[in-house]
Amino acid sequence: MQHDQLMARAIKLAQQGCYTTSPNPNVGCLIVKNGQIIAEGWHQQAGQAHAEKHALNQLTLAQTTGADCYVTLEPCCHTGKTGPCCEALIKAKVKSVYIAMIDPNPRVSGKGIMKLRQAGIEVIVGLLTDEAKKLNLDFIHRMQTGRPKVQSKIAMSLDGRTAMASGESQWITGQAARQDVQRLRAKACAVMTGIGTVLADDPKLTVRSVIDYPDIEVRQPYRVVVDSGLQTPDNAAVLSSKAKTIIATASQKKMADVTVWHCPDESSHRVDLTALLSQLGQYQINQVLVEAGPTLNGALIAAGLIDELILYYSPKILGNNARGAFSIPGLEQLAACCTLSITDMVAVGKDWRITAIPDY
Amino acid sequence: MQHDQLMARAIKLAQQGCYTTSPNPNVGCLIVKNGQIIAEGWHQQAGQAHAEKHALNQLTLAQTTGADCYVTLEPCCHTGKTGPCCEALIKAKVKSVYIAMIDPNPRVSGKGIMKLRQAGIEVIVGLLTDEAKKLNLDFIHRMQTGRPKVQSKIAMSLDGRTAMASGESQWITGQAARQDVQRLRAKACAVMTGIGTVLADDPKLTVRSVIDYPDIEVRQPYRVVVDSGLQTPDNAAVLSSKAKTIIATASQKKMADVTVWHCPDESSHRVDLTALLSQLGQYQINQVLVEAGPTLNGALIAAGLIDELILYYSPKILGNNARGAFSIPGLEQLAACCTLSITDMVAVGKDWRITAIPDY
Repeated sequence: MQHDQLMARAIKLAQQGCYTTSPNPNVGCLIVKNGQIIAEGWHQQAGQAHAEKHALNQLTLAQTTGADCYVTLEPCCHTGKTGPCCEALIKAKVKSVYIAMIDPNPRVSGKGIMKLRQAGIEVIVGLLTDEAKKLNLDFIHRMQTGRPKVQSKIAMSLDGRTAMASGESQWITGQAARQDVQRLRAKACAVMTGIGTVLADDPKLTVRSVIDYPDIEVRQPYRVVVDSGLQTPDNAAVLSSKAKTIIATASQKKMADVTVWHCPDESSHRVDLTALLSQLGQYQINQVLVEAGPTLNGALIAAGLIDELILYYSPKILGNNARGAFSIPGLEQLAACCTLSITDMVAVGKDWRITAIPDY
Repeated sequence: MQHDQLMARAIKLAQQGCYTTSPNPNVGCLIVKNGQIIAEGWHQQAGQAHAEKHALNQLTLAQTTGADCYVTLEPCCHTGKTGPCCEALIKAKVKSVYIAMIDPNPRVSGKGIMKLRQAGIEVIVGLLTDEAKKLNLDFIHRMQTGRPKVQSKIAMSLDGRTAMASGESQWITGQAARQDVQRLRAKACAVMTGIGTVLADDPKLTVRSVIDYPDIEVRQPYRVVVDSGLQTPDNAAVLSSKAKTIIATASQKKMADVTVWHCPDESSHRVDLTALLSQLGQYQINQVLVEAGPTLNGALIAAGLIDELILYYSPKILGNNARGAFSIPGLEQLAACCTLSITDMVAVGKDWRITAIPDY
């Protein structure tokens, strides 16, 4: 097999971790000897073996000596919950290491490569880099900006309406779209909503059923409620024990048995969304899925904080009395509106999903 | 060549009339002898030769005697602006006539076939019928319902907004989408708008430039203004001499030098849209392109009168203060909303066009 075919296989392995490795990146690894793959590994869950270890652990020193390693991300050289992978590769006496991309964390980037080279291992960097990046767009985003990637999912009618005037919104989109949203949730590190949605719909915001989820306990993303006045009721479904919840507030009030982050914007007395996202970044949240109403979505887009919109369009017309998706007070001129680039459009059951990236 | 290949060629010929044959249907015709196409014809403009004549006129009686004819629509047997095509085929002594579909006009349907058979000509019906129907969906619709097919084109942002609160809407969509609308206009028999749009935007509603238009003078569709109170200003651009204009009103007022149709709904004192469409049907209008604001679009969809929505989505977010596409007073429950089936979705420049058919 060619080098790029081998790396493509390593990428395929890495993809299996898409629901479970968070906050760690998805990584896949092959050990190859005499042109044959002798072990495959991938990172499955934070706290468990990294991809390189997962592969090496299946082999003896005799097998790994002189072998080649293909790995989708630069091997780590620091001791986290598990020992550094560079050390393991050096001890295993591999000959060459093929790396798809260097570590996006600017503080460690390149150090793993240096360590391997210092030990006399040949290191080749840059095989299928673009494909490898797609494995970890959220992780890379956090490493580069300090903030999670923010994806907002909105289900609406063809005329851009998310609910009737009464608030009735179950169900605008069909089952296939709702199942698709479960996948988005399962891949996210946190699901964020606003107090308006909590009070109106009392959502659980947990991952319920994902068809292609691996056969292990579901990793529930954090739930984050933007609640400037700390109005979340004690018995809100979003506070259930099924997953961890963070309430971000601008209020001085306190709430027993709930993680409350105080992050006020002093001028507006509302939650400072930029500060909240930075704090979530420090909390190792790579990706936030926003499932919110017009107030939070409008505030996020007006502040330039949405990185990707996932819009589900149901073939319905709800009319102008029905509710819209983005409340953006002060937006009066077409030239001042947010423009986007559509990156994907696909049928999901009877509905259509459009993915768009704002051109901030 | 096989029969269906020959009929496919006839359909291809018919398509060339898409901008110009209205109110007549698009028809294509081949004359084939000894397996060779010896003449091709298509209907170019109402008042000019039908497809069969167009083909036969290129040949001598010796050539047409014993030949086969492939025609996309049942040949006519009545004398309109030109003599009946059945007579011409009989006089030309053709042997067989292959017909894709019978005449959709219930009053004449089948009579052409009968006349040919009575003259001893073999008639084979049903070759590529579905493809042939697509040539004339609007004509078929009028023949079956008495009303034109109503297509409504709306340009909006991803959040379903057609203009800023101020009315500013030039331009939400890009040049490619606007060019695409010119093609829709050029194919329509009439372009319909409401008095709100006339007063706010003063549109011309004429066909200006269509890239693939044949090299003849542009056939301008009728312009129809729904103007219950007869408020159209004398100097409105929609009254220019470039094209014919019909104003439909519920008012008793009169207007000099303008065709005014009085079609009131007695209960609402507004234009009776169903009656207006029936009258347009009697006027041989096969297809109406609606380019209107939320009042007319809302009234049409609530009355079940839109047959096809052509929605252009521009990748922009305009926010909830901006204007919506459908004003539907009284629509309060999701179960009562209009549902549709999406039949097509395609990129048009940076915008996307969605075609959807209401499930009334």
